[in-house]
Amino acid sequence: MPSEPCTAVRPRLATRADRLVSSAIRDLLHLAERPDVLSLAGGLPDGSTFPVERVAVAAERALRAIGRYGSPSLQYGATEGLAEFREWAAAGSAVHPAFGTPDSVLLTTGSQQGLDLLARTLVDSGDVAVVEDPVYLGARQVLLAAGACLVGVRVDRDGLDVDDLAARLRAGLRPRLVYTVPHFQNPTGAVLSAARRSRLATLAEEYGFVIVEDDPYVALGFDGTRLESLGALAPDHVVTLASASKVLAPGIRVGWLRAPRWLHRTLVLAKQAVDLHTATLNQYIALDVLSDDEFMHSHVTTLRSTYATKGAALHVALDGLFATDAPRGGMFLWGEADRDTTNAFDAAIAAGVAYVPGDAFGVDIDRRCALRLAYATLGIDELRGAADRLRRVFSA
Amino acid sequence: MPSEPCTAVRPRLATRADRLVSSAIRDLLHLAERPDVLSLAGGLPDGSTFPVERVAVAAERALRAIGRYGSPSLQYGATEGLAEFREWAAAGSAVHPAFGTPDSVLLTTGSQQGLDLLARTLVDSGDVAVVEDPVYLGARQVLLAAGACLVGVRVDRDGLDVDDLAARLRAGLRPRLVYTVPHFQNPTGAVLSAARRSRLATLAEEYGFVIVEDDPYVALGFDGTRLESLGALAPDHVVTLASASKVLAPGIRVGWLRAPRWLHRTLVLAKQAVDLHTATLNQYIALDVLSDDEFMHSHVTTLRSTYATKGAALHVALDGLFATDAPRGGMFLWGEADRDTTNAFDAAIAAGVAYVPGDAFGVDIDRRCALRLAYATLGIDELRGAADRLRRVFSA
Repeated sequence: MPSEPCTAVRPRLATRADRLVSSAIRDLLHLAERPDVLSLAGGLPDGSTFPVERVAVAAERALRAIGRYGSPSLQYGATEGLAEFREWAAAGSAVHPAFGTPDSVLLTTGSQQGLDLLARTLVDSGDVAVVEDPVYLGARQVLLAAGACLVGVRVDRDGLDVDDLAARLRAGLRPRLVYTVPHFQNPTGAVLSAARRSRLATLAEEYGFVIVEDDPYVALGFDGTRLESLGALAPDHVVTLASASKVLAPGIRVGWLRAPRWLHRTLVLAKQAVDLHTATLNQYIALDVLSDDEFMHSHVTTLRSTYATKGAALHVALDGLFATDAPRGGMFLWGEADRDTTNAFDAAIAAGVAYVPGDAFGVDIDRRCALRLAYATLGIDELRGAADRLRRVFSA
Repeated sequence: MPSEPCTAVRPRLATRADRLVSSAIRDLLHLAERPDVLSLAGGLPDGSTFPVERVAVAAERALRAIGRYGSPSLQYGATEGLAEFREWAAAGSAVHPAFGTPDSVLLTTGSQQGLDLLARTLVDSGDVAVVEDPVYLGARQVLLAAGACLVGVRVDRDGLDVDDLAARLRAGLRPRLVYTVPHFQNPTGAVLSAARRSRLATLAEEYGFVIVEDDPYVALGFDGTRLESLGALAPDHVVTLASASKVLAPGIRVGWLRAPRWLHRTLVLAKQAVDLHTATLNQYIALDVLSDDEFMHSHVTTLRSTYATKGAALHVALDGLFATDAPRGGMFLWGEADRDTTNAFDAAIAAGVAYVPGDAFGVDIDRRCALRLAYATLGIDELRGAADRLRRVFSA
């Protein structure tokens, strides 16, 4: 699915429904609901890992708190988010990098909202946005909606190919922003290498673009791998997005971002118009749990080990059916098949298994023979069953 | 504060920070935090009415539920919102009108998000949006951000002056949408009369505009007043916004809307890009409480009586200091002073009382001598104290 030609000046978001790229993942999600389908498509975290008891304690505590205007968890709050959350976020933790000062933090209604605020704030119609190729669908969606002209830069085992980006910049490419998922990228699982991080940060300063560092999987390296945040390398040119969705639970829709001083106030004003503030109850719950270092250390250790076991189980069960690397972190395995995976999709559903065809993630590079397999959602036996069903389809 | 000239074609939202109209209310909110200030500015619901116990029961129940992928309250969900919430919303209840079919409902992250989605979906830069004059600040903010050219139509005791609107339509005005708060309007407290509702619905069909019916206060008529929803009068031309913020609690950020079929899918796609879906935990909590008819009947009765008592107490304590009607519902009292209320604001803060100057709400009509007093937040004694302090400022 190549990006649209860059000469087209796009009208406003959603003025015409057919302009909006509907996320293929979310359109496929209803297939995951069919009881006969083992879905590797959705990218849902393992629901058995949700710390229900700990969240219940946090919710109870938040609701019982008394403030000047009733329980603060049920009252309106400041657009920027709770001061104590911003202080905690600035300090860094087991689940995300240190973030500079509390003043640079903004709570968001999931990090998807952070992406939307950035697209609306930074992108004018026709601006160039560099994205990873293949790209996270939610980022492509908001960038296209904002009228961005997408340019894809290849992702390999070491993440975004920064040398290729540098060559294009020398040749005259002038992006407004460069979007990257630097740890365990969605959809490939790649980790942006330390050398490339350093070079990318330098390029941002040299060419004056903003790096959007979308880092929800940073804590999910199976061996604890966690490289330096781009935000620490070039704080005035990087917005870092963090999320509770992958380390706590997505259903509470809590994310947060760090932005440079020149951009932060604009993002706050944009957020104020969008939803006033992120749900206060959810902020209190997330802060209570996330700032419980002892609990989170144990919880993240469990998550890593759970996803490592699942990722390995799927990889082993596939037994070379697709060209793929063993996963090193995060939730996704990226494979290359010997045929068009979109064409094979109906047969896969008929066989009782779902994935996301690579074509959905491609920007400028043809990904029609690739596919994304999310190993986080299903149990081990189900993953093995899904691999068997995939073999029936792709060995035929 | 007149609207900007309509000839200006505005750039995108937040491309330049100074283009965004910061909500005067929210910029004043920090004054409400000063312990020496009795604030009539913020428009916070009475925190003592928050049904903490009932919400705690709902939260516990939501968290303990088991689904195919863990507790559904903590997992990703569909963009449209929970099917059971949409069914409940379609049926109507003590807190909002019936909404047609579940397929026409969309859960939103507060009704402010509904406004933003509508502005982004319906408004192209330069489109005319008719708003009430004076207008709810959050609506003006999103409409201006979307590039709308605002035209104010006077509000009197019977709400939006539909005769004046009709005259302007005959003279050639062609709005994309007409925004109204038909019950206990923010900031004036006016209720759009039945005759005007009927006429407005007819005009929408005749001239092909969309009515945005923002109805968060519908359940808060002190004598139970509740007129027919515009959405029932012209379902194909009306989007109705409902909210849990005023009848349950604003901190959970749950709203919902009903949209015509031709618009609903576009709104869902826009919402998907904006925050994927409204927090599932919050949807479950809100649905559990809101659909508890016995509880809500009692709770809404308490809210009405609480706000009626407070509104009357403030009105009586002001004792003719401002020209004002006795409030009939909602949270606000609108007054006319004998001087510029923005100029008097510093003296008011010095006297330990805060309000929102009328100028903040004005569109085309000069409101510099008006002011909005929110009586919902403070206790009765505080309201009387605030009235005394206002007298010191405005009798001087």
